[in-house]
Amino acid sequence: MSRCQPVSEIPPMKDLTTDNITDNVKILNNQCPQARSRYIFDRLVSHLHDFVRETRLTTTEWQTGIDFLTAAGQISNDLRAEMILLSDTLGVSLLVDAINHPRHGNATEGTVLGPFHTHDAPVADNGYTLHHDEEAAKLFVLATVRDASGRPIPGVVADVWEGDAHGFYDVQNPHRDQPDGRAVLRSDDDGLFYFTAVVPVPYPIPMDGPVGSMLTHLHRHPNRPGHIHFMLRKPGWDPLITALYPRGDPYETSDPVFGVKESLIVDLGTVDDTIAQKYNVKAGTRLLTYDFILVQEEEAARLRQELATKAVEEMGLGVAIENGLPVLDVD
Amino acid sequence: MSRCQPVSEIPPMKDLTTDNITDNVKILNNQCPQARSRYIFDRLVSHLHDFVRETRLTTTEWQTGIDFLTAAGQISNDLRAEMILLSDTLGVSLLVDAINHPRHGNATEGTVLGPFHTHDAPVADNGYTLHHDEEAAKLFVLATVRDASGRPIPGVVADVWEGDAHGFYDVQNPHRDQPDGRAVLRSDDDGLFYFTAVVPVPYPIPMDGPVGSMLTHLHRHPNRPGHIHFMLRKPGWDPLITALYPRGDPYETSDPVFGVKESLIVDLGTVDDTIAQKYNVKAGTRLLTYDFILVQEEEAARLRQELATKAVEEMGLGVAIENGLPVLDVD
Repeated sequence: MSRCQPVSEIPPMKDLTTDNITDNVKILNNQCPQARSRYIFDRLVSHLHDFVRETRLTTTEWQTGIDFLTAAGQISNDLRAEMILLSDTLGVSLLVDAINHPRHGNATEGTVLGPFHTHDAPVADNGYTLHHDEEAAKLFVLATVRDASGRPIPGVVADVWEGDAHGFYDVQNPHRDQPDGRAVLRSDDDGLFYFTAVVPVPYPIPMDGPVGSMLTHLHRHPNRPGHIHFMLRKPGWDPLITALYPRGDPYETSDPVFGVKESLIVDLGTVDDTIAQKYNVKAGTRLLTYDFILVQEEEAARLRQELATKAVEEMGLGVAIENGLPVLDVD
Repeated sequence: MSRCQPVSEIPPMKDLTTDNITDNVKILNNQCPQARSRYIFDRLVSHLHDFVRETRLTTTEWQTGIDFLTAAGQISNDLRAEMILLSDTLGVSLLVDAINHPRHGNATEGTVLGPFHTHDAPVADNGYTLHHDEEAAKLFVLATVRDASGRPIPGVVADVWEGDAHGFYDVQNPHRDQPDGRAVLRSDDDGLFYFTAVVPVPYPIPMDGPVGSMLTHLHRHPNRPGHIHFMLRKPGWDPLITALYPRGDPYETSDPVFGVKESLIVDLGTVDDTIAQKYNVKAGTRLLTYDFILVQEEEAARLRQELATKAVEEMGLGVAIENGLPVLDVD
């Protein structure tokens, strides 16, 4: 009748206190055969417990945290990623991106993915108009993708997405029946891709969920500076997730998700007759041009491993590097 | 048309990197007017970021964490508390309890609340039979509540809950239409409360959710040693959340939620004729007797503050104590 499994071979534990609980949790977790998981859980448990010990977290505060995380999960769905928004607003997403895509020479910097990327954007030809809104102020985006020495990279899949003229993404529309403001393009033989967007405007991140309540509690404003998202991928190249920010936005230096970088701020121009004719777009339209520079996958991996090695050496944590990532050295 | 709020007065930030992101997140969070919240978020952001930096968390691992927390929220409902189960299995719940209810003289030790407490248990008279299951091996529980010098405390509200003879709590029954295996009793003038339970059996914590997958990944067994839960409350007394564990359970020293303490392990006896007659229970029934000892609320608060002060002094974090809890000293 027993639904239980056999007792495992671990040292007996009992009478756990503030002083010995951490080591005992690690003893149980270290039964995991994967070195990388053991290391991640070792660090997770250390930091979770230190957080509780240093704050002397009250039972009420703990319950608030439990309820907060539960609510963030419950409000999430295929089109709403509240847990990513939480990670974004606590600076975790930017940090993860910075670690995984370290700045490399003259390569384009990455930034946060954000919670509004979807997997249903239409595959479209260059010249595509992102938004259905005819009234919106148009922006022609003319971009190239190149390697570090300036050679064009053709065949790069360019996922682009943007809010509308009022700063709303399509997924925020409860009546959304198809994607709007997003497309999947491809760079041509000259490394070029181009499309018509709208001039980005600042917008508040969704404030009707737990993350919104958190920002309100912290007296933080929710407004992101206007931007267009880009995700550039091609086998052999380090994927680039980034965004471009037109200069002069009022929230340029207080972005709630910490995504702005000087190298990603752009001065908008105007479509002249040559461009108008070549790309079949109206002269006088606002213009955004940008040269994206990708890094080869192996170069990026080499730099990541170099920085990881340096970081764990500096931390003196007694860790080794396995497959490019830190693991506990005691194994 | 703008949905945005005015720009707040914070130092400009941009170009955030692995080195400066943490301080910048704190600058935004420190706009919060509440000192306690500022301290909690200061520690939270430090530990979250250090966790990411020390593990060099990959984007895939980050996404796994996001998905895990989202799923834990989504499987939760009024009768299922997956986020508490996560806290329990990572030793956080035991730590929070140990900090909030430090051992005080001869007072009864607390332990984890667990995810199975509900708020719909029937208010019942002493002598109540917890479970509807007539076939189960019965256990008569005869308890007193006293102060540190042995004086009975009458009028203590005793919330008791327990799994059934197969280790299932009522809330795990998808067809649950009423509470079973739980009651809210009250200590009488002699500080006595008593009820009929079933002899506790070990049982696995729910394994069909994300926390179950986590334990499987870590090669941890899910089996809690058998126990009965108690929550004792009376105004003026520090609330006691605890559980009693019959001695000799195979999982006594490897509890997945770290709840077992030597002082909470009990030797079961047998109901004799005197007890049988006095409490109208069958002679020969298994018997659990226990004397709970409560601490006065102000005594517990004093001890908590003393330990909090000592802990933050030892940590050298430059924090002050305000209303008994640490806050940043720089304010």
